[in-house]
Amino acid sequence: MESEPTGRHRARQRPDYPLNAWYAVAQDVELKRELLARKVCGTFVVMYRRGDGQPVALEDSCWHRMLPLSKGRLLGDEVVCGYHGLRYDTSGRCTHMPSQSTVNPTACVRSFPMVERHRYLWMWPGDPALAEPSRIPDLHQNRDPHWAGDGKRIFARCNYKLVLDNLMDLTHETFVHGSSIGQDAVAERPFVTRHGRGVVQVERWMLDVEPPPFWAKQLGKPGRVDRWQIIRFQAPSTISIDVGVAPAGSGAPEGDRSQGVNGMVINTITPESERTSHYFWAFVRNYRCDEQTITHELCEGVAQIFREDELILEAQQRALDEYPERTFYDLNVDAGGVWARKQIDAMIDEERTPAKLVVVQ
Amino acid sequence: MESEPTGRHRARQRPDYPLNAWYAVAQDVELKRELLARKVCGTFVVMYRRGDGQPVALEDSCWHRMLPLSKGRLLGDEVVCGYHGLRYDTSGRCTHMPSQSTVNPTACVRSFPMVERHRYLWMWPGDPALAEPSRIPDLHQNRDPHWAGDGKRIFARCNYKLVLDNLMDLTHETFVHGSSIGQDAVAERPFVTRHGRGVVQVERWMLDVEPPPFWAKQLGKPGRVDRWQIIRFQAPSTISIDVGVAPAGSGAPEGDRSQGVNGMVINTITPESERTSHYFWAFVRNYRCDEQTITHELCEGVAQIFREDELILEAQQRALDEYPERTFYDLNVDAGGVWARKQIDAMIDEERTPAKLVVVQ
Amino acid sequence: MESEPTGRHRARQRPDYPLNAWYAVAQDVELKRELLARKVCGTFVVMYRRGDGQPVALEDSCWHRMLPLSKGRLLGDEVVCGYHGLRYDTSGRCTHMPSQSTVNPTACVRSFPMVERHRYLWMWPGDPALAEPSRIPDLHQNRDPHWAGDGKRIFARCNYKLVLDNLMDLTHETFVHGSSIGQDAVAERPFVTRHGRGVVQVERWMLDVEPPPFWAKQLGKPGRVDRWQIIRFQAPSTISIDVGVAPAGSGAPEGDRSQGVNGMVINTITPESERTSHYFWAFVRNYRCDEQTITHELCEGVAQIFREDELILEAQQRALDEYPERTFYDLNVDAGGVWARKQIDAMIDEERTPAKLVVVQ
Repeated sequence: MESEPTGRHRARQRPDYPLNAWYAVAQDVELKRELLARKVCGTFVVMYRRGDGQPVALEDSCWHRMLPLSKGRLLGDEVVCGYHGLRYDTSGRCTHMPSQSTVNPTACVRSFPMVERHRYLWMWPGDPALAEPSRIPDLHQNRDPHWAGDGKRIFARCNYKLVLDNLMDLTHETFVHGSSIGQDAVAERPFVTRHGRGVVQVERWMLDVEPPPFWAKQLGKPGRVDRWQIIRFQAPSTISIDVGVAPAGSGAPEGDRSQGVNGMVINTITPESERTSHYFWAFVRNYRCDEQTITHELCEGVAQIFREDELILEAQQRALDEYPERTFYDLNVDAGGVWARKQIDAMIDEERTPAKLVVVQ
Repeated sequence: MESEPTGRHRARQRPDYPLNAWYAVAQDVELKRELLARKVCGTFVVMYRRGDGQPVALEDSCWHRMLPLSKGRLLGDEVVCGYHGLRYDTSGRCTHMPSQSTVNPTACVRSFPMVERHRYLWMWPGDPALAEPSRIPDLHQNRDPHWAGDGKRIFARCNYKLVLDNLMDLTHETFVHGSSIGQDAVAERPFVTRHGRGVVQVERWMLDVEPPPFWAKQLGKPGRVDRWQIIRFQAPSTISIDVGVAPAGSGAPEGDRSQGVNGMVINTITPESERTSHYFWAFVRNYRCDEQTITHELCEGVAQIFREDELILEAQQRALDEYPERTFYDLNVDAGGVWARKQIDAMIDEERTPAKLVVVQ
Repeated sequence: MESEPTGRHRARQRPDYPLNAWYAVAQDVELKRELLARKVCGTFVVMYRRGDGQPVALEDSCWHRMLPLSKGRLLGDEVVCGYHGLRYDTSGRCTHMPSQSTVNPTACVRSFPMVERHRYLWMWPGDPALAEPSRIPDLHQNRDPHWAGDGKRIFARCNYKLVLDNLMDLTHETFVHGSSIGQDAVAERPFVTRHGRGVVQVERWMLDVEPPPFWAKQLGKPGRVDRWQIIRFQAPSTISIDVGVAPAGSGAPEGDRSQGVNGMVINTITPESERTSHYFWAFVRNYRCDEQTITHELCEGVAQIFREDELILEAQQRALDEYPERTFYDLNVDAGGVWARKQIDAMIDEERTPAKLVVVQ
């Protein structure tokens, strides 16, 4: 299916993220045998690894007097509150209270399903009964021997959908990233949008163009190139982008791209609140995989590009805050982002609809 | 007309400024061939000069995704958005969109009438059809070969009416500016208040008094003086004050003041929000006009005096914020300020009243 | 009466402090012949000493234009406003207005009853007719020749009841103050709670225990000890704690404690707002009273311990702000704090009930 939705829509709805979804909450290297506090989808969460390395996520608020448990400490696999010493096991059940021999059986904090995959920790803030690990977004290139690279976490002071909009339409590269990856072709060449249940894809081919500085350096060969951007959205908030260039004539959609260079920009964004997000990204490549210097250079280079986006995104959020009655208007290039928002809205609607009664006769 | 209004009134109303009025938004030297962002009457505005020097003011928010246009750049006389490259002409009409050959004809941002006069840029935030340049306040002494001087812009963290109150009653000089221009006579000598449509005048003559340090230095002659303060308010927010001293006996209202020194304190205040203001002021004089050192000394001296006012005004605004239910009470000396507020209220009322139907038979 | 109340209660109510009560607003050494501004129970207050040393407290907001009077100056025993020179006597009556010979007889600011006692200034923010000095909490040890010590004022960024909870249950010493006064016995030994009209007492005896570092140093003798904590709450917000250790066998409730060391932790907490408090404390002892070095060491040592509490209390307040719908749950150890909150609620209820009509026949 192709589509060019048009028209206007409200810039903000509340709450505007689904809870029944896997969200990246930490890079694998961030989570250790110690307490890590992070706010996820409006809820304070304390995370840690058990002795056997398995990840645990609990509500970061003691049942008794609401002190964040992250201000306490680990005792084996249990968390001890830093105020009065209440203890909680990995399921959130209170196992010890001071000065009393029996424990109130209702004393507990929420625990959240956690899975480690693709170099991220994924948490499910909604109904635990629905937390199927098969629904974790596919970002396998982030942990694949044929791909190499690294990434970072950005604390973005904006609604997560502003980051998605930014990634679903790359025409902004021409204006925001003019010194690295931007070029007129990105803003002017046609693109194709496809969408299915929970996925949206935007594809843009720029054949026979001058490579921008970033890609000229990666390719390391003179001359014009065929350049591509294949953006793949997985609801509610994961986007991977197949990017690259090949010598002109060798990079067409059906061509042999082996003469070129190919990267995958991995992005998954987790709402912290309505106005703030945890933005996890990585850049991996399938060429010169064993050269650590390239990994470092690419990671730092992309980090610099993303800082240009951050300034834009934060300015947009401030504008939304200042003009609550204003709305966004869409251009043709927004087709991908508009379909992504529709997919998110469908998830939110589904969550709010009471489960259907199935009558068995 | 003379008047001594009394009684109590609400310290705050909302919105408490007229929109159909000219407001100073920049000093002439501030506006160049580049984008300048400023908030005026609650609206974000981007300003610049065209190639021919004429001033332009547009709403600082792209029609598409609300990024402030001030984060973009000028291309000839057009503004290019820094996110996706939409272009706007000086009337606010969008002339270019990326990746599409036609431009949505409804795509535009507001443009505001702008006029340069008296060394200020004046913007009309209300109905453009009513923006008569003849309604710009008369501050001609700020650009007149018989007067010399300079001024500054203050970002005042208070409602603009608090600045007006401060200027309409100068008894505070005795208590706030005791080391420079204050003296008991300012608080104790009688004054006369007059008012007409859109103007209020407060006149105080202090005959045969010791000059305070500031004026003693300006006059440069020993002995007692006649001192005057003639405060002229032009609605909604411009106040010029004719100030000076002359040797005692030569400065009476009907006297020959040529033996004295005479200055004009120019003030025009623009609401930024309900709680913040752009305060433009200048001090010009009609003596020793070619001595640049005096211009510099006077400008810095007045700037120091106004910093004393700023501390008072900000403390007052904090008090209003903390005690929203409290009201101001008036003294006799508040007559001028009370009439100024009445003139402002009349403008606001007029703006809200639907235009009268004129039936022609 | 003994009691172990259980169950859940709302963490916050509004307004949640009585006004008809004496609150400490300054240490005696803080109040001088100059203006001191402080917010007390949501009201801005300006305080000073008259020429004869008597304390005065007035509303810190000029009747005229709401400038804080604390920005003005003293003239004899009167306050002169720093904006237009209005003067107020110690009863809050305006005695002078600029430029007019008569003073509006309704012009005044509130004045508050003030009494100096136990090294504190006590202010009554409620109905002055009820301000009986006999209702000032008994903290006589703070100014008694048999006791010596000193204290400080903490600006605590939390509701005052969180400080009371903290003091009414000392099991937290084990977890918050492990390096100084905490030990497992505090969390595990039984305690007894008693309460009467306006008072609550929690008593815990820890016989034959190892002394924690703080007390071992104070006692200066080797060996095990009997340790006690007798917490006495006086509504609405004063808590004194009789603390000490004696050689094991000599410190039982009915024993002779003269071989031990005995201190009194004095605490009185004044709401500044719903979210902030002035916390006055002192530590006094009845041994080695003339050694100024010990006074200094104890005061600094306790100050360090209380900083550990501050971090907890501020984290709790942030949690209350973030989770307004959440409630506190109680453990057995909260009996004292729960009774203290009940006493406060009773005072607030009494204040809101219209006075009974007494019909005399």
